[in-house]
Amino acid sequence: MSRKVTIALDAMGGDRGPEAVVPAALATLEKDDSASLVLVGLPEILEKAKRQAKDSYGNRLRFKSASEAVAMDESPASALKKKKDSSLRVAIELVKNGEADACVSAGNTGALMATARYVLKTLPGIDRPAIISAVPGIAGPTYMLDLGANVGCTSQHLLQFALMGSVVAGDMLETSRPRVGLLNIGQEDMKGNEVVREAGELLERSGLNYVGFVEGDGIFHADVDVVVSDGFVGNVALKTMEGVARMISSILKEEFHKNVLRGVQGLIAKSALEGIRERLDPRRYNGASLVGLNGVVLKSHGSADEFAFETAVKTAIVEARKGVPVQIGKLIENQPKECIPA
Amino acid sequence: MSRKVTIALDAMGGDRGPEAVVPAALATLEKDDSASLVLVGLPEILEKAKRQAKDSYGNRLRFKSASEAVAMDESPASALKKKKDSSLRVAIELVKNGEADACVSAGNTGALMATARYVLKTLPGIDRPAIISAVPGIAGPTYMLDLGANVGCTSQHLLQFALMGSVVAGDMLETSRPRVGLLNIGQEDMKGNEVVREAGELLERSGLNYVGFVEGDGIFHADVDVVVSDGFVGNVALKTMEGVARMISSILKEEFHKNVLRGVQGLIAKSALEGIRERLDPRRYNGASLVGLNGVVLKSHGSADEFAFETAVKTAIVEARKGVPVQIGKLIENQPKECIPA
Repeated sequence: MSRKVTIALDAMGGDRGPEAVVPAALATLEKDDSASLVLVGLPEILEKAKRQAKDSYGNRLRFKSASEAVAMDESPASALKKKKDSSLRVAIELVKNGEADACVSAGNTGALMATARYVLKTLPGIDRPAIISAVPGIAGPTYMLDLGANVGCTSQHLLQFALMGSVVAGDMLETSRPRVGLLNIGQEDMKGNEVVREAGELLERSGLNYVGFVEGDGIFHADVDVVVSDGFVGNVALKTMEGVARMISSILKEEFHKNVLRGVQGLIAKSALEGIRERLDPRRYNGASLVGLNGVVLKSHGSADEFAFETAVKTAIVEARKGVPVQIGKLIENQPKECIPA
Repeated sequence: MSRKVTIALDAMGGDRGPEAVVPAALATLEKDDSASLVLVGLPEILEKAKRQAKDSYGNRLRFKSASEAVAMDESPASALKKKKDSSLRVAIELVKNGEADACVSAGNTGALMATARYVLKTLPGIDRPAIISAVPGIAGPTYMLDLGANVGCTSQHLLQFALMGSVVAGDMLETSRPRVGLLNIGQEDMKGNEVVREAGELLERSGLNYVGFVEGDGIFHADVDVVVSDGFVGNVALKTMEGVARMISSILKEEFHKNVLRGVQGLIAKSALEGIRERLDPRRYNGASLVGLNGVVLKSHGSADEFAFETAVKTAIVEARKGVPVQIGKLIENQPKECIPA
């Protein structure tokens, strides 16, 4: 049996709030016997969730009320200062005081990062927590970070991202030596900017399985598991991917609806088209980890539905079971002195 | 009738060299009566091309021999210093001395940029030439720059890119006020890095049709014609697009070849699948302009075939007809003083 873990879920976050979170919670409890969940939300929301759960999960489903919710467009500073009893904050506090092994929220990214950083603190040797997520690749997922938490990174920061990414990818892909690449604009040593070139030198000495520079198209190739970049570049790459995928899927739809004949062709090719849709379904990749903190915090996409939110919960469960923060702490400790900030 | 223009073609550049360039040249002459071409290459290559052309185009097809070719992996410095009679250089010299209105090469990007900059010089008010290309969007092409010539740009550089991009997009899309966006990691004013925020302020005062920040997925939306970024970010975004498109097309292939039934479905859906392939065909977008120089220089993808190279030649013809460099010069002259470097 898998190690028992408890995950706190912010029931109020995201565009759909409890409409997505509660069914995702029940589905998780149904499928994973060793997972317990704590739903955090406004009392009336929890009451309704209790009725939906019908006492089916005993002690594996608990409830923790919070008196307020962080708005999706609220500033991180305002959420941090003024909403001390928000569902987002209470979920993180549960991780802090050991009542939960991880938390998941589909709420405001900035507020989640600011609150998690304030409550949980960053790990020793980590300057800045980062955002990491799986993205689809030709032969399986690739893990990318940073996806937007940090702009203007130094080579030291990129090294720290690489260390954290290596732990996450290793745990999620169940591989001991994930291959780490640095996002750059050419594969030759002289290309790109100075920060990336310096980070390449640090990575050569890091003990990680560093495979060198990777260009934008290399993210999807089978020869790399972790792609490291500054948060500005990583965020642009991530959003660009989403944009291209959406454009292609709208072109697919258009071409199969051009006229009656095309519609019939589409019906006939339905299983293949569904296969394609499924393989590219962003919901299967939902859930970005805020890494570098003393605790596991997962950010679900704000637009996540029940299925997508469940994916994020699954990632939280794996990261909690594997103890990602402890592993990152150990990896940092074993780094050569010159690679780690004082 | 369209204005007569003469385009110099580097017959030696690219992975296929004259195999792609010569047929593309003949196809261009066939379709565009007001275009003349000068093929630049080694004497034996030109001899063969002459035989292929069979005197069909009279004075519209001329030949200029060069004694050497720049290798695809040659360093820009070496090409510039040691290959003064290369086909790439001779094609650019033809633009310099007025014998051609533009040149096109599928050769080494670094060598092309270094040589073009050295021979043609940058326009007054432009610090750094940039690379611009059309990328497919939902409602038509979007023009992106810089695609990799410049890393570590200042807000001034981004403004200059915006001015140049506006001219190119205006000419290519035949619109007088192309909408210009700045690539950023959030649409709110406070998001992103300082250089981009400062560039946004400069753009507000520039007189361009500035529409604000655009995220990675916004590149493909219908509400922007030009997307401006640092060359590092732009190159990563471009390569990421290429990677996603290639991945999706390989998934399409896989799904329609999974078994015999799927193969039959693929045959039935053939016209739709071909429609999709055609709309996403990167060859339809081949050809990046090196803008900011005293002359029109087009870079074709190294792997371009005849059809792709012809697309690049078409772009060169339009830019030459419209006089892109002169237009950029005028736009720069009319900028407020604080927007332009001394």
